[in-house]
Amino acid sequence: MSTPVLEVVAVGDELVHGRGIDTNSAYISDRLEALGFRAARFAVVGDPMADLVPALADAVARADCVVVTGGLGPTEDDRTRHALAAAAGVELAFHDESWRWIDEWMQARGRRATDDNRRQALVPLGGAALRNRWGTAPGLVMEIGGTPVYALPGVPAEMKAMLGAHVEPALRERFADRLVPAAHRTLKVLGPTEAALGERLAARMAVVDGPVTVGVTAHYGLLSVRIVARDPDPVVADALAQRHSDEVEVELGDDFLYRGDAEPAARVLDELRRAGLDLATAESCTGGIIAAMLTDVAGSSDVYRGGWVTYSNQRKRDDLGVPAALLEEHGAVSEPVVGAMAAGAAAASGARIAVAVSGVAGPGGGTDDKPVGTVCFGLTVDGVSRTWTRRIAPIGRRFVRERSAFEVLGAVLRELLRRPS
Amino acid sequence: MSTPVLEVVAVGDELVHGRGIDTNSAYISDRLEALGFRAARFAVVGDPMADLVPALADAVARADCVVVTGGLGPTEDDRTRHALAAAAGVELAFHDESWRWIDEWMQARGRRATDDNRRQALVPLGGAALRNRWGTAPGLVMEIGGTPVYALPGVPAEMKAMLGAHVEPALRERFADRLVPAAHRTLKVLGPTEAALGERLAARMAVVDGPVTVGVTAHYGLLSVRIVARDPDPVVADALAQRHSDEVEVELGDDFLYRGDAEPAARVLDELRRAGLDLATAESCTGGIIAAMLTDVAGSSDVYRGGWVTYSNQRKRDDLGVPAALLEEHGAVSEPVVGAMAAGAAAASGARIAVAVSGVAGPGGGTDDKPVGTVCFGLTVDGVSRTWTRRIAPIGRRFVRERSAFEVLGAVLRELLRRPS
Repeated sequence: MSTPVLEVVAVGDELVHGRGIDTNSAYISDRLEALGFRAARFAVVGDPMADLVPALADAVARADCVVVTGGLGPTEDDRTRHALAAAAGVELAFHDESWRWIDEWMQARGRRATDDNRRQALVPLGGAALRNRWGTAPGLVMEIGGTPVYALPGVPAEMKAMLGAHVEPALRERFADRLVPAAHRTLKVLGPTEAALGERLAARMAVVDGPVTVGVTAHYGLLSVRIVARDPDPVVADALAQRHSDEVEVELGDDFLYRGDAEPAARVLDELRRAGLDLATAESCTGGIIAAMLTDVAGSSDVYRGGWVTYSNQRKRDDLGVPAALLEEHGAVSEPVVGAMAAGAAAASGARIAVAVSGVAGPGGGTDDKPVGTVCFGLTVDGVSRTWTRRIAPIGRRFVRERSAFEVLGAVLRELLRRPS
Repeated sequence: MSTPVLEVVAVGDELVHGRGIDTNSAYISDRLEALGFRAARFAVVGDPMADLVPALADAVARADCVVVTGGLGPTEDDRTRHALAAAAGVELAFHDESWRWIDEWMQARGRRATDDNRRQALVPLGGAALRNRWGTAPGLVMEIGGTPVYALPGVPAEMKAMLGAHVEPALRERFADRLVPAAHRTLKVLGPTEAALGERLAARMAVVDGPVTVGVTAHYGLLSVRIVARDPDPVVADALAQRHSDEVEVELGDDFLYRGDAEPAARVLDELRRAGLDLATAESCTGGIIAAMLTDVAGSSDVYRGGWVTYSNQRKRDDLGVPAALLEEHGAVSEPVVGAMAAGAAAASGARIAVAVSGVAGPGGGTDDKPVGTVCFGLTVDGVSRTWTRRIAPIGRRFVRERSAFEVLGAVLRELLRRPS
């Protein structure tokens, strides 16, 4: 038995005309792949029937299961019900129970269903309505040419609730004999380029249809190695994923950062709490990005003491006590200066760990000696400072800045993970 | 002649398996619809050849033009070149000039091309390589069954640069007799919610097939009204767009911020330069986002003096001189405190303008008096301070923080635009 194939169709003019981004398909894929499906294709399509009907028919012809989102609203341009009926070659019928659901929902909110809402009570003959307890639009389920098709609202919260309530239980039962459970592992890596890491993992990445697949994605130099293992026995799938991720971790050596999908800033804050330490930041070329990443995590204020964006030499002197002579002799982008910035930030904030970064983000400002992408880093822990320099690929200002921020968070994390607990 | 139809294919296992979100297709659709195409469908597809080749062939069979993104990297799982060759029924050939481009790019960055990169120099017979000056992967252009197909890298910055450099000029020429020129205007708006603005512009937005269409997009509360006018005569299209944007600007009143697609931070820096003024920031709940937005613009250091991320009361006292009594009496989220923060930041930095923000970003920390989303703002100009408070919709921590950052930049901009020059 082969793994059943899923396709997702996201419906909406705003999506296909670039006014909105489809995030529903990725969510549905992630959930149903965890169940044992393999997602093969998403289609994003606008509201005209001439586009919508063939997109639905194509997906149904190829996949073992199709999930559609969007186009179930009350207005003229919501046509998913009509398009499904057309793709199946059946008529639509008014469904009294759907109408009651809609009216109840509206009344509970002090409103009344309007004539427009009647459109939402239409069900293709042979199909069934799915109750929506999170909004007005009932969903649909039907078979077209033997393929089950589910239509859910486009509002993400409603889609998610209905996927869990109606779709997942039904699919788990229907495809019980064909679903191969998948286990996932993610390893975060900082150091090599995506290409260099790909070379090191080439043999594993070449496997496409085996029980274990390995992929690499990059986000401003922070790499994620994703391992997916499948086996009819979920325990075996999990053990396979674990064994491969253990092996990859060893192969990665010092470039390995941590396991899981958490953001680096969230991991840093967790480890700070665990170690009972706190942190301050002094940023020049990253200009607040590290602070913004840390404070993006709710509750960060218990271990993050705050920071300085010392974009000028004067602020480095006045706020962080960097000696003018040091700036004069070595320049703002130098290890002595970032060392003094980190020490100054620790002293001024009272934090036990402080980090500092100063570099040439570009596109201008590079010299032969310090080309664009040259970034100096300082880390002070309980009064002991170390500094280092990286030549970051000058792919763009944004890349240099974000990659520098990850360098700092990675260094703090490695420092914390090395400490005996 | 009918409007030519565009389809976009986004390639990547990470996309179809729900580990990443495809934003490239929306960008491409937006740009090429501005040129006069109509986007009918996007496909998101994984890396296996068995999925990729039919997805490309399907799009080619339906559309007048196909743009593919992703799958041009150096690793084994980058298969777009191979899939296009298979869809066209031709072989791949090694392209010496592509190899030179790749090697030059790497050498300019102190690296060497590896054997893996040779994969990136492959071109389907009958196709041509497109030089990528923003990364390693050359793009491709070829005809399949008479339909032009462009393949661009998946990295958004590279895709955008290559779309502008290679694809748009070529399509404009090739489809000259079928494209109806469009003129665009963008108005940035800060104040109303997206729904409230949509209601105010409902009559204009209801026009779908007319010569002038109006759409609203939102990015963390910063709204963009996009006006597109089409006419076979580009002068008429431009005049139509101008007239409608003038009318909308009047309708928007005080909620109008500025014209054009520039980022608010870039506009603030421009206006600071024009006025000969400089700026410092003091951030609590935004935690560095404003500083990061400003320093994201190259050359910002000439008018941006730097900032403080004073996430704790102690830092507000020590760095910005906020009196302890003020913090005690009114709390950190209060107008007296942000007023003192702004004044303190101006004094410590010497900048003529300083801004301060302190609020409840959530999800925790709200009270009856100051629920999540309550944010206080302070603005000091040449020693004169004013403060105000907003209740931002508590949609999420991210939303409250980004919306607050836009509030600050919007306030500085309105201040600067009001000044006689």
